[in-house]
Amino acid sequence: MSSSQLIQKELNLVTKLIKNEIIEEKTISDLYKYIFNSDGKRLRAKLSLISSSLNKRNIKKRLKLAAVIELLHTATLIHDDVVDESQIRRGVKSINNIWSNAHGVLIGDYIYSKAFILMVEIGESTILKELANATNDISKGELIQLDALQNTEISLEDLKAISYFKTGRLFEASAKTGAALGRGDKNFVNSISKCAKYLGILFQIKDDLLDYSLNDKIVGKPVFQDIKEGKVTYPFYFAYKNGDKDNKKRLKSYLGKNKLNINSVYNLIDQLGGINETENLALEYLDKAKESANSIKNKHIKEEMLKLVNSALYRKK
Amino acid sequence: MSSSQLIQKELNLVTKLIKNEIIEEKTISDLYKYIFNSDGKRLRAKLSLISSSLNKRNIKKRLKLAAVIELLHTATLIHDDVVDESQIRRGVKSINNIWSNAHGVLIGDYIYSKAFILMVEIGESTILKELANATNDISKGELIQLDALQNTEISLEDLKAISYFKTGRLFEASAKTGAALGRGDKNFVNSISKCAKYLGILFQIKDDLLDYSLNDKIVGKPVFQDIKEGKVTYPFYFAYKNGDKDNKKRLKSYLGKNKLNINSVYNLIDQLGGINETENLALEYLDKAKESANSIKNKHIKEEMLKLVNSALYRKK
Repeated sequence: MSSSQLIQKELNLVTKLIKNEIIEEKTISDLYKYIFNSDGKRLRAKLSLISSSLNKRNIKKRLKLAAVIELLHTATLIHDDVVDESQIRRGVKSINNIWSNAHGVLIGDYIYSKAFILMVEIGESTILKELANATNDISKGELIQLDALQNTEISLEDLKAISYFKTGRLFEASAKTGAALGRGDKNFVNSISKCAKYLGILFQIKDDLLDYSLNDKIVGKPVFQDIKEGKVTYPFYFAYKNGDKDNKKRLKSYLGKNKLNINSVYNLIDQLGGINETENLALEYLDKAKESANSIKNKHIKEEMLKLVNSALYRKK
Repeated sequence: MSSSQLIQKELNLVTKLIKNEIIEEKTISDLYKYIFNSDGKRLRAKLSLISSSLNKRNIKKRLKLAAVIELLHTATLIHDDVVDESQIRRGVKSINNIWSNAHGVLIGDYIYSKAFILMVEIGESTILKELANATNDISKGELIQLDALQNTEISLEDLKAISYFKTGRLFEASAKTGAALGRGDKNFVNSISKCAKYLGILFQIKDDLLDYSLNDKIVGKPVFQDIKEGKVTYPFYFAYKNGDKDNKKRLKSYLGKNKLNINSVYNLIDQLGGINETENLALEYLDKAKESANSIKNKHIKEEMLKLVNSALYRKK
């Protein structure tokens, strides 16, 4: 079996492990099934499995750690949907939409604490410490983003910090904890964590680009949500920076407006270089991620990481 | 210094420790200050300090554990307010009211992860395990309660389960982890955990009673909220059980209704024995809590626990 096939097989075991954690209470189990039946990319779980694959003997703990990562990510998504009042997630209706905001808050907490139980079972203090810090950073990032709503004066540095906290941080923690579980040496831990961090930021930049896509059928979720919610992301940021006084005024008028002519919005942002400059930024992070991947000595792991990095850039949804 | 005075002094150090954890980001620090300046009872932190006081040498870890308990409780409260759409908490406006639901969700997550960081620093696997399980049980209880809305057919057993999960569980965990940190023997851990569990349920029953109070000035928060939110709690449960067909119909019509004549509601529930039977149930738990307290050998700790139990029954807010 190739290492890719092995990772895929392990990934399915992770999903099974998560499903087995479904408990008896009817509601919780309904919600749980609903969440984990929808087709997520399970990218962070995959990253965890790749990073821990240096030492394959420890399969039980490796699967458990990947499940923890996936659960933490899912809890964050569910709370995000409450925060953003999103109606669609992974191509299906969101929890807060089908049930209620209250369900979204509580099922998020439930899944988060389930992750916590599993990580205590793994019983490694380095892993606990990293995941505690990562979850704290993630919520910090979300709070910073919330207060950056409608802020056209936000700096590129702040946008990068948000991408790191919101997305890069859990990617980084997935790799770091996986590598620690696999008993990798310092160089390995550093290279793979850095690669994962840049991969996560690249993933977020690409997410921001996909939101400015004219074809929502391919993306599988509503598009132009960021601008409608008043969120300044990279395409808007670059366009606004490059715009003259009139352009700035028009762009500002779009921000936070629910009814938009998306073609005009797209054209203005594109003309002002918003799409192009964001694509260039993505390429910068692609290079950084590749450079870190190339410093990984283990050939299989290096190749798996390079595959993830490339697919993050070329993904269509 | 008496043991009560010592606990009070330690409790103030816990509050200081929590404040020192306030980080640099402006928003988070504003929210944080707002939450921890409001006058909470810090009952769970106190319970933690009493339970860990068998071994006073370990003061740093004892304060940290009490801070963890208080942070976990605060995170739960903030999420509860989002779930219940509450406007007032601890006599002042709630986070979701002053800021937004989104802030409530995220600041709750932030505080929860902060608690997680501190408990990892304490570095005791028994404590981590108990707190992971407790937080999971708490969210399970909240979900069960959410799905019991408008359910007049709920059983007394289910109501007791909700009181345990929602409130008794964290009281129990506070005592169990405190006792574990203080290196108490098995008997001590069992007695104080049981006492704390019953104390928590008593506290919740009293909370349900206070909500059916005609004087909101004394209680310090809006009253008759449970019935307005469609929540069946003990007073309603007993009244409904005792009511004839017409009473049941009237009671049902009140449930989930925002505009109520609270005097008529109170009178009906009182006439049907709802208040009295709830008071009797509180006395049952008072007895159970006292019995467990009395099996604690350490005289100071026993007395502190009995004081907590009595004040839970007689509290006016």
